[in-house]
Amino acid sequence: MPPDEELRYPSPPPIDSNTTTDDEAGWVWAQIKAEARRDAESEPALASYLYSTILSHSSLERSLAFHLGNKLCSSTLLSTLLYDLFLDTFASDPSLCVAAVADLRAARVRDPACISFSHCLLNFKGFLACQAHRIAHKLWNQSRRPLALALHSRISDVFAVDIHPAAKIGKGKASGDRHPKIGDGVLIGAGAIILGDVKIGKGAKIGAGSVVLIDVPPRTTTVGNPARLIGGKEKPTKHEECPGESMDHTSFISDWSDYII
Amino acid sequence: MPPDEELRYPSPPPIDSNTTTDDEAGWVWAQIKAEARRDAESEPALASYLYSTILSHSSLERSLAFHLGNKLCSSTLLSTLLYDLFLDTFASDPSLCVAAVADLRAARVRDPACISFSHCLLNFKGFLACQAHRIAHKLWNQSRRPLALALHSRISDVFAVDIHPAAKIGKGKASGDRHPKIGDGVLIGAGAIILGDVKIGKGAKIGAGSVVLIDVPPRTTTVGNPARLIGGKEKPTKHEECPGESMDHTSFISDWSDYII
Amino acid sequence: MPPDEELRYPSPPPIDSNTTTDDEAGWVWAQIKAEARRDAESEPALASYLYSTILSHSSLERSLAFHLGNKLCSSTLLSTLLYDLFLDTFASDPSLCVAAVADLRAARVRDPACISFSHCLLNFKGFLACQAHRIAHKLWNQSRRPLALALHSRISDVFAVDIHPAAKIGKGKASGDRHPKIGDGVLIGAGAIILGDVKIGKGAKIGAGSVVLIDVPPRTTTVGNPARLIGGKEKPTKHEECPGESMDHTSFISDWSDYII
Amino acid sequence: MPPDEELRYPSPPPIDSNTTTDDEAGWVWAQIKAEARRDAESEPALASYLYSTILSHSSLERSLAFHLGNKLCSSTLLSTLLYDLFLDTFASDPSLCVAAVADLRAARVRDPACISFSHCLLNFKGFLACQAHRIAHKLWNQSRRPLALALHSRISDVFAVDIHPAAKIGKGKASGDRHPKIGDGVLIGAGAIILGDVKIGKGAKIGAGSVVLIDVPPRTTTVGNPARLIGGKEKPTKHEECPGESMDHTSFISDWSDYII
Amino acid sequence: MPPDEELRYPSPPPIDSNTTTDDEAGWVWAQIKAEARRDAESEPALASYLYSTILSHSSLERSLAFHLGNKLCSSTLLSTLLYDLFLDTFASDPSLCVAAVADLRAARVRDPACISFSHCLLNFKGFLACQAHRIAHKLWNQSRRPLALALHSRISDVFAVDIHPAAKIGKGKASGDRHPKIGDGVLIGAGAIILGDVKIGKGAKIGAGSVVLIDVPPRTTTVGNPARLIGGKEKPTKHEECPGESMDHTSFISDWSDYII
Amino acid sequence: MPPDEELRYPSPPPIDSNTTTDDEAGWVWAQIKAEARRDAESEPALASYLYSTILSHSSLERSLAFHLGNKLCSSTLLSTLLYDLFLDTFASDPSLCVAAVADLRAARVRDPACISFSHCLLNFKGFLACQAHRIAHKLWNQSRRPLALALHSRISDVFAVDIHPAAKIGKGKASGDRHPKIGDGVLIGAGAIILGDVKIGKGAKIGAGSVVLIDVPPRTTTVGNPARLIGGKEKPTKHEECPGESMDHTSFISDWSDYII
Repeated sequence: MPPDEELRYPSPPPIDSNTTTDDEAGWVWAQIKAEARRDAESEPALASYLYSTILSHSSLERSLAFHLGNKLCSSTLLSTLLYDLFLDTFASDPSLCVAAVADLRAARVRDPACISFSHCLLNFKGFLACQAHRIAHKLWNQSRRPLALALHSRISDVFAVDIHPAAKIGKGKASGDRHPKIGDGVLIGAGAIILGDVKIGKGAKIGAGSVVLIDVPPRTTTVGNPARLIGGKEKPTKHEECPGESMDHTSFISDWSDYII
Repeated sequence: MPPDEELRYPSPPPIDSNTTTDDEAGWVWAQIKAEARRDAESEPALASYLYSTILSHSSLERSLAFHLGNKLCSSTLLSTLLYDLFLDTFASDPSLCVAAVADLRAARVRDPACISFSHCLLNFKGFLACQAHRIAHKLWNQSRRPLALALHSRISDVFAVDIHPAAKIGKGKASGDRHPKIGDGVLIGAGAIILGDVKIGKGAKIGAGSVVLIDVPPRTTTVGNPARLIGGKEKPTKHEECPGESMDHTSFISDWSDYII
Repeated sequence: MPPDEELRYPSPPPIDSNTTTDDEAGWVWAQIKAEARRDAESEPALASYLYSTILSHSSLERSLAFHLGNKLCSSTLLSTLLYDLFLDTFASDPSLCVAAVADLRAARVRDPACISFSHCLLNFKGFLACQAHRIAHKLWNQSRRPLALALHSRISDVFAVDIHPAAKIGKGKASGDRHPKIGDGVLIGAGAIILGDVKIGKGAKIGAGSVVLIDVPPRTTTVGNPARLIGGKEKPTKHEECPGESMDHTSFISDWSDYII
Repeated sequence: MPPDEELRYPSPPPIDSNTTTDDEAGWVWAQIKAEARRDAESEPALASYLYSTILSHSSLERSLAFHLGNKLCSSTLLSTLLYDLFLDTFASDPSLCVAAVADLRAARVRDPACISFSHCLLNFKGFLACQAHRIAHKLWNQSRRPLALALHSRISDVFAVDIHPAAKIGKGKASGDRHPKIGDGVLIGAGAIILGDVKIGKGAKIGAGSVVLIDVPPRTTTVGNPARLIGGKEKPTKHEECPGESMDHTSFISDWSDYII
Repeated sequence: MPPDEELRYPSPPPIDSNTTTDDEAGWVWAQIKAEARRDAESEPALASYLYSTILSHSSLERSLAFHLGNKLCSSTLLSTLLYDLFLDTFASDPSLCVAAVADLRAARVRDPACISFSHCLLNFKGFLACQAHRIAHKLWNQSRRPLALALHSRISDVFAVDIHPAAKIGKGKASGDRHPKIGDGVLIGAGAIILGDVKIGKGAKIGAGSVVLIDVPPRTTTVGNPARLIGGKEKPTKHEECPGESMDHTSFISDWSDYII
Repeated sequence: MPPDEELRYPSPPPIDSNTTTDDEAGWVWAQIKAEARRDAESEPALASYLYSTILSHSSLERSLAFHLGNKLCSSTLLSTLLYDLFLDTFASDPSLCVAAVADLRAARVRDPACISFSHCLLNFKGFLACQAHRIAHKLWNQSRRPLALALHSRISDVFAVDIHPAAKIGKGKASGDRHPKIGDGVLIGAGAIILGDVKIGKGAKIGAGSVVLIDVPPRTTTVGNPARLIGGKEKPTKHEECPGESMDHTSFISDWSDYII
């Protein structure tokens, strides 16, 4: 197969179908292995990396635990220790792997910069930081706070992504603390900062570099520093598309350019 | 002791009292060791890390030199070389340790995200970058500029904090160069950029993500990109609280939200 | 020679002269070695680093390949593998070294923070990220995309600079894709974000922390988030100086401060 | 407990009793943890090492897999990869852990140089090489020969112990190949070399530095280079004690000194 | 292909033919790649290692330089530095690669323990130490003695093989110094020690663990400590086979056992 | 100075004179630095190594602690931890440095293979193992046995030298334990094994590869496996030279060859 030809995937199980998540994980993992095999064949210089991170593993969980362990380790926090911790945590809570699979599928479908599942798994800081954060969050909730904070510190050092281990990603919970609540399908631009007890509604968009200190209603867009709502505070413009359907970070341009003086 | 129970510290020497700084350093170091011992006991997976970074050391200086050496090393700048350099610099200038102790106490008292001294010592990028910067600054003033710049480069790589080694933190000196002067008790939000020969007055607040190109008077707040003074250029609103008393990064919200259109 | 005395360079071949680029590269490499030798002599603690990164090498290409290989390696991407790849790429395309030399000369002449060629070669994230990006871009154009993306991921992890391997730096090409086109001599401030299919004209300036979503005409300045043109959208103020002549990041202050309310 | 006081073990299950091997492994593992805890407390400089290698693990298998993975790794064979392999192999064949426990008990009881179980687990080359060899042997028998040989090569590099992965330790099997057969309870002195298809009978002793090219009958001693039997080829002297009961390497002296001219 | 099936090589160029050595090197390198590809396919856990050490390289020299660089490096002697040195030395003296090819062929044909070329290339201490020694010897003869000795020290640390860089392997030169002269086709057993200005004649055999302090005539065997000639000093027994034809380390047994009392 | 020209040392303080040991250490350290500077200048590829191990340090103790720390470290025993331990031990017991200086002088004067002090300091396994052993022995005597044994294990792994931390080198003490007593000026050949409670008299020689199980009287030579006294058990031949005056490992040849049948 020519080196940069795209793999045509056999029809995947639809995301929202009633198929079991095991099927989904299996299908995504099979794609990842097929991609890695194709890339290893066409690019021997990368093959060692692809075998150690993907092709030598028997499951997505092991591959992800291995890759994160090697990314986040330091001379005082050994890769073997982190690998161990991640393996155990994945084994004890299958929802972590389900979430990783959903993130991989979302990135593959929605983000034009994502050319393959394996590319996302290996290289996307946001994806990797998010999976590591979920582990830190789980540790935090188990009252293993010093460990959660040490992991948080490594995530921040290595991926330059700073999410407090107490923060929950996925379903906006009720208020009552100091942390932002991020709804499903929200798209957060590069370099954005969200601070305090604010709610970002489902399907909202946060412009790159924005500094958000106010609630953002569902399906609205906020941009700038300080961030303002497109259409104004009183009557923000709603966008039509499904929550988080497109990950095109340039879609702000049309939303926004009218507002630039 | 239950894993996440907070340590009740024996009454510390008050910050501004006449007790000697040696007492303060000793007291803080004792707290750090007690915290690390408690955490090592409740979390065996982290114990190796806590012993190597804290519990095996006889003083705060050694612990900090060790931790920074292992954080900032690379394959061409060995940890042993950096450790050596840091140990020597701490030994030759006791004020560096005094400043580190003051930073630890300030973070512990003022920053709601700081749950323990040891958490700050091990994990706070800002704290670690600041201590390493002070060493680079000292080297710069001794005309050891290539070494100061190599250290600066590592601080920037590892902590994503970029403070030129010529910059002085702590007491606003007179003008006359290209670098910002940051007064005591200033609170700088995440991702803020301060450029050129500007003065940030005592107790001022710089909002997260702000880009500051103008002088900021004492006890005033500046936000946005470009940063504007809350209350306007002519009559900026003064805040009441003591300089830098609260490190609550969300305190900008109320200051600011009125100004968001 | 006293440690911080500046080297007086013998008159270099002028940048735009008809001398061959080999002469230029040779001259710059000779300066770098002289600087490194002086620094190694005055600062034994840094000598090991200077010998391994500069003084043990026979050419700028080898030094740069070595330094980038050691900076970008990880436990799963070995330094020897990267070094090999970089050596081969430099050998196969001499324009890469020519471009590196031009960048070094530009930084030395224009950036007041750059005190020596060797300082830039060893420590400037922007310089190093740019050279590594050129290699990734070349791999991308050779359809070695998985390797280009793996390298891109390491550049982003290590230097916190995120340039897609498909992006071309240097000569604004025609439109037709999703990536910015950056003209010659553009000065991009720290933390700036440029998104989408926008054109940044020759000699334009992008303020630190700006988020640019619109075309910027030649020799104009854009600042803020969202970024606006100094002088307004309709009639932006042109600056007089030659494109990119000064790298003084504080020059925005005077441009800008009139526009701050 | 004073630092060098010996732990008084609660009465262990007798080696040859009918108690299950799980009881034995559990008892030994409990001793190891108690020893490591005592040593970590009395020697903070070693505590980090003891926590990472022993105290952070939930079982002997995990501790051993971790320690061997970190001992045998190299820049091209990652510790995480080896750890993974060892964990899997231990999980698939419980007899490997049973054998390790037996070796630990034997060393503790018989070798006067072995002051604790944990000392043997962490520091005894012979013990560690033997456990790693058993894994290599298993891989060899599963026809995973390239992996077995790569592991063999690392065992030889790191522990300077060279046992071919095809060699079986424990029960002398019939002849028919090129490898030595070593019976139970044989004591092999430091630096001894045993070559070819020779049989070393149960309870035999091989003197330090001996080069053995002949069969050694049970409970006889062979010494020298080339090795000769004590008492002569025809009527070698039998020793009385139980096979392998004493690991005292100096016991050859009395056996042997009469034969030295 | 089943995992442990042996590769049937296409007929190689005969060792002593008039074919050019380039043909030989090319043929051996092709075998090595074929073996590594087969092993990587059947053993994913080893594939990363095989790609990084063999399959990503374009020639035997590069593979060998890479593997030796990673084997012999330490925290103070970087792998990239050694790799560089080895690449340069191989490029400047093609006879080094010719000798490596001859060693590989000899081991493959003669040593029953060598199951493939790639096994020898990756795992045989003797082979690797010999190639590294040849580089050290070359450096020594170029009066680069400190570098030769540093390399010698690493060879001794890592491979436990101690050959002085001044020693020449291959053609016995005239006397006149303190070092042994080893003829072609000599077989040296494991753990043997050869000291002083002694000559080991072509095709001689040195028994494992022997300590040789006397000249050994061609095609004779010496064994023991101190080593004696089989057949006696006056009329040593000559063996018939071609010099070094068999690497069977057990062939001493029959030679020798008659002499054991 | 031409690369391999020997340094002519200014007249050193005589070994047995009344000059203080500080003078001796200072003189030897000055020689080492001069040698390293000469070698770094003539061999840029080695300069990085020489600066990091020797030229960046202010004293022999620091250089030795640094070099041993980097040699003996592993992924679970950090170089910084070992460096710290060695620095502290050298500081607390000046006799350790005095002994190292004496060893360096002895090797330089007596061993024909030792071409410079720095060569011995950096590369001689025996020298390095001996200094590390002295530290382990000191820890043993302070009842820090687990640490002494961990260090012993690393010495054995890295230098393939196995001296129990309880063993004392230097002055034969009275009997009463299981360990050999080695007198002053004893020369021990490569690969020799000495076992049990034996006394090796002052100035004795142990042949390479010997296995010694009997007392060796002063100024006598023992060779072979098992080792016998030259001249016979009853009336061993005494050699004339001062104890340990020559380190020429080939001097056994003449002693011995008469005894080889």
